[in-house]
Amino acid sequence: MNNDYAVPEAAKPAASVDISFFAEQINKTLSTISYGDNPVELYEPIRYIMQLGGKRLRPLVTLLAGYLFQDDVQKCLKPACGVEVFHNFTLLHDDLMDKAPLRRGQPTVHEKWNNNIAILSGDVMMVKAYELFLDVEPAKLQKVLKLFSHCAAAVCEGQQLDMNFETSDFTTIEDYLHMITLKTAVLLGFSLELGAVLNGAPENDALLLKNFGIKVGIAFQLRDDLLDVYGEQDKFGKQVGGDILADKKTFLLLTAIDQANQSQKEVLTRYKNQTIYSGQEKVQEFTQIYNELNIRAQTEDKINSYFEEAIQSLNAVNAPEARKAMLRNLALQLMERES
Amino acid sequence: MNNDYAVPEAAKPAASVDISFFAEQINKTLSTISYGDNPVELYEPIRYIMQLGGKRLRPLVTLLAGYLFQDDVQKCLKPACGVEVFHNFTLLHDDLMDKAPLRRGQPTVHEKWNNNIAILSGDVMMVKAYELFLDVEPAKLQKVLKLFSHCAAAVCEGQQLDMNFETSDFTTIEDYLHMITLKTAVLLGFSLELGAVLNGAPENDALLLKNFGIKVGIAFQLRDDLLDVYGEQDKFGKQVGGDILADKKTFLLLTAIDQANQSQKEVLTRYKNQTIYSGQEKVQEFTQIYNELNIRAQTEDKINSYFEEAIQSLNAVNAPEARKAMLRNLALQLMERES
Repeated sequence: MNNDYAVPEAAKPAASVDISFFAEQINKTLSTISYGDNPVELYEPIRYIMQLGGKRLRPLVTLLAGYLFQDDVQKCLKPACGVEVFHNFTLLHDDLMDKAPLRRGQPTVHEKWNNNIAILSGDVMMVKAYELFLDVEPAKLQKVLKLFSHCAAAVCEGQQLDMNFETSDFTTIEDYLHMITLKTAVLLGFSLELGAVLNGAPENDALLLKNFGIKVGIAFQLRDDLLDVYGEQDKFGKQVGGDILADKKTFLLLTAIDQANQSQKEVLTRYKNQTIYSGQEKVQEFTQIYNELNIRAQTEDKINSYFEEAIQSLNAVNAPEARKAMLRNLALQLMERES
Repeated sequence: MNNDYAVPEAAKPAASVDISFFAEQINKTLSTISYGDNPVELYEPIRYIMQLGGKRLRPLVTLLAGYLFQDDVQKCLKPACGVEVFHNFTLLHDDLMDKAPLRRGQPTVHEKWNNNIAILSGDVMMVKAYELFLDVEPAKLQKVLKLFSHCAAAVCEGQQLDMNFETSDFTTIEDYLHMITLKTAVLLGFSLELGAVLNGAPENDALLLKNFGIKVGIAFQLRDDLLDVYGEQDKFGKQVGGDILADKKTFLLLTAIDQANQSQKEVLTRYKNQTIYSGQEKVQEFTQIYNELNIRAQTEDKINSYFEEAIQSLNAVNAPEARKAMLRNLALQLMERES
C-alpha cells in the first residue's frame, strides 16, 4: 500500500460538532487510500466494492468512541478505515460464498469479474485492512491487533455457522443469537472499543463501549429480520418476505417453530425446499402464523431488551453527556430505520 | 487463538548444532499451535493442511537467519511459524483457484470439504498467521508487520499474474521472472529478513539476506521448471512433462518460443488447447525442440546465475562463517534436489 497519502487537515473537531463532521473525515480518509495498481485485476475490485458506498457505520462509531475521550480523533482515522476495509472484505467473500448477484444494487465482484478474482482480491483486502492498523503507536499496536484479529476470526466463525444453519434442522434460538453475535455484532463492538483504546479510555469504559456495540449489533440484526416480514415494501430496500422465501432461519422463524402447535408446525415445515407453492402463498401463510403467535411483538420485545442493555452500557461510560448523545442518537436512528 | 501454549524449552542451541536442531524447534512449535475449535468446519481444514507436512523451508531459514546474529532464536519461533501458516494459506486458496485435486498426495481442502469451506478456513488462516507475529517486541512489531504485509500482498499479486498468464499470448520471459519473484521468491526473502530483523541484524545484513532468499527462490522455481522436463520420472514426484501438457508458460517454453524458427514455432503453438495429439507425443515434440535449442543448458545457466548472486549476497553478510555455511548448504541441497 502506498502510505504517503495526505493526512486530512482538520481531524480535530471544532468546539461544537455534529456527526456529519466525523462522517466527512471518514469519507475524506477513505478517498485517499491507494490500495495498489498492478495487476489491475487484483486491485480494481477493491476500489469497486469500496466505492459502492454504504453507511460507513463502523468507522463512524470508532471516531465517535474516540471523541468521548479526546477532542482529537486523528489517530483513529486510519484504523477506522481498516475496519471498513475489513468489513467490505467480508462482504466480498460472503457474497461469493452465498452466490449473491447484487450488493448495494450493483453486481457483486464475483459476478462482475469471476470467482478467482473475488477470492484473491478479497485476500489482499484483508492484508490492506491490517496495513491500515500499522501506524497505531507502538505501545498500543499489539493490543489493538490482538483485539482486531480476535474479532476477525470471530466474524469468520459467524459466517461458517450461518452456512451450517442452512442445512441443519436443529438450529435453536440460542444458536442463532450466538451466530449473529459473531457474524455481525462483534465487529461493531470492536469498532467502538478501538476508538476508545486508541484515544486512551480506561479499560472499563472501553469494555462498556464494546458491549454497547455488540448489543446494538444484535438488536440491529433482529430489526433486519423483523423488517423482512413487517417492513413496508416501498421503504424496505429488499423484497419483503425474502428470508421466508429463502428458508432462512431468522429469529422470527425459529421463535415460531419453537412455539407452533402441530398444524402450524406442519405449515412451517411443509414448504421447505419446495417450489410447488407460489412464493406469495408461502409468505402469506408464514406471516399468518407469525401473527397468530404474536411473533412481531416478541421480536420487538427482544430488540428493545438488547437495545436497553446497550444504552445502559453507554450510560455507564465516564464521558461528557453531549458526546455520548451522538452515539445514543446514532443507535436510535439504526433502530428506527425502515430499510 | 489460544496463545497460552507451552514455550519450547530449549530454543537456545548448544555450542555445536546442525540444521536438524532448528527443524526440530519448528516442528515442536508448530505442534503446539491451537488454531481454534468451533465451528469444526472452519478449523479442521487448517489442522489438516498444516499436518500434510512439507519441508518447512521458510520457518527453517528464519531461524537460520536469526542464528547468524544471536545464539538464541527463541523470539523467532512464533513469527517463523506465522510464515509457515501464511504459506499454507496461500497453498489452500491457490489450490482452490487452480482446481487442484491433490496437495502432497492428499485431497485438497476444497475437494475434501467444499469450496466455501476452503475460502473461509483460508481467510481465518491468514488471521492466524498475523496472530503468530503479535508477540514480536513492541519496538519492532510495526516494522515486521509492514514487511510481512508488503510480502503477503506481493504473493497475491504473483498468483494473479500467474492466472493472467494462462490466457495471455504475450507473456515474456521478463514477465515470467517477475511473476515467480512475487509468487514464490519474495516469501523466502521475507523469511530470511524476518529472522535477521528479529535477532538484531544491521539493516544492510537483513537486506543481503532478503536478496539471498529472493535469488534462491527464483533459482528454485527455475529448477522446478527444468525438472518437469528433464527430471527422472522415478525421482521426480510429479508427472514428467506435466507443465508441457498443461500449456504452462515456464521459463523453458518462453525461452524456446523466443528462439524458435518458423517450423519449431508452429509445433509449439499447434498443440495449444488441443487434445487431438496424445500427451506423450506432445511432450516428446516439445522436448525435442528444447534439445535443438539447447534450452536445458540455457536454463541451467540462468539457475546458476541466480544462485551465484544469492551466494554472493550471503557471503557479504557479516556473520560467523560456520553459521552462514548452514544456509549455504541448505540452498545447495535445494538446487541439487531431483524432486
